[in-house]
Amino acid sequence: MAALTVTRKGAARRETILDRAYGIACAAGLEGLSIGTLAQAVGMSKSGLFAHFGSREGLQLAVLDSAAERFVAHVFAPALRQPRGLARLGTIVENWFDWVRHVDDGGCLFLAAVSEYDDRPGPQRDRVLEQDRQWRQALAQAVSLAVGTGELRPDTDVEQLVFEIYALPLLVHHDAGLYGYDTALARGRRAYQRLIDSYSP
Amino acid sequence: MAALTVTRKGAARRETILDRAYGIACAAGLEGLSIGTLAQAVGMSKSGLFAHFGSREGLQLAVLDSAAERFVAHVFAPALRQPRGLARLGTIVENWFDWVRHVDDGGCLFLAAVSEYDDRPGPQRDRVLEQDRQWRQALAQAVSLAVGTGELRPDTDVEQLVFEIYALPLLVHHDAGLYGYDTALARGRRAYQRLIDSYSP
Repeated sequence: MAALTVTRKGAARRETILDRAYGIACAAGLEGLSIGTLAQAVGMSKSGLFAHFGSREGLQLAVLDSAAERFVAHVFAPALRQPRGLARLGTIVENWFDWVRHVDDGGCLFLAAVSEYDDRPGPQRDRVLEQDRQWRQALAQAVSLAVGTGELRPDTDVEQLVFEIYALPLLVHHDAGLYGYDTALARGRRAYQRLIDSYSP
Repeated sequence: MAALTVTRKGAARRETILDRAYGIACAAGLEGLSIGTLAQAVGMSKSGLFAHFGSREGLQLAVLDSAAERFVAHVFAPALRQPRGLARLGTIVENWFDWVRHVDDGGCLFLAAVSEYDDRPGPQRDRVLEQDRQWRQALAQAVSLAVGTGELRPDTDVEQLVFEIYALPLLVHHDAGLYGYDTALARGRRAYQRLIDSYSP
């Protein structure tokens, strides 16, 4: 029991540290994150943080994983309560638009990470790519189910539709900062509806 | 004549400085640009640069203007040689995809600027917003002409179609870094064709 308590406390501590690291990375990018700045921010020693994450790279990968967990919990997981088909796909997209609103304060960690690492081979780039692939697979699955229910045309090019969907939250994010979230959201929703109509049987 | 020569030399010198400043800003963002770092990069005194740009803010605005000129020269101006309508609009989009390939080394200054300034009121944000508005107006004009030629439906929501077009180079830029430019370009072209088809009379 004592060991378990320690483990739970350790896990909670790790979560708190990752929360703070996530906040720093959202504002300054993953490359703006170092063991030193994080140690200062959470009031820990650098050696204590090294014990948690092993290295700066380990910390960056842990923050990426933590961001992906948040994203899945916000965007994807709640949509699984919807019936498969357009109800679920539409909920995913709606939650994704909502995610974009919530990241608007500090910028989106994933977009920053793509731009930081897309031309820098290494474990961070590999992780970003893997996360993006997994997300597209999840979207492709949701699209395929909507083909299965007959709500989308049987000859739907699933990967292509995933691309066309993906473009919308990206632009809503871009436009929210310039024209306000509500205007951008209205355009994004309308574009999604037009897109789905164009794939309807 | 002597004065004219000096002016021409001054303008050429200014272009050279802006070239270098543009390169720095593409890699490090406009906020990564300072009179000091630029002075070092071009081998000039800081006071010499102040004489050219007045202030760091003046330099940042000049770089934004210079980037907009490059963008217009690459994307928009050549398309004006095409007949009004879908020929011209399609050329704009194709040139925009091509622009995305060329900025891929250092990242897109405009996207970086949106993310740097969208939540920071000031002259830089004003300029970024003004440039984005002007670009959408140019796109809206090109779309309207294609409505005028009868190639797009008369009830086309011009602003909405501009939004839906804008999303595509944005995602091609995002995907190029992860999956390679050619794959991203093929998806982007197909999406544009599908989009235009969905607005066809």
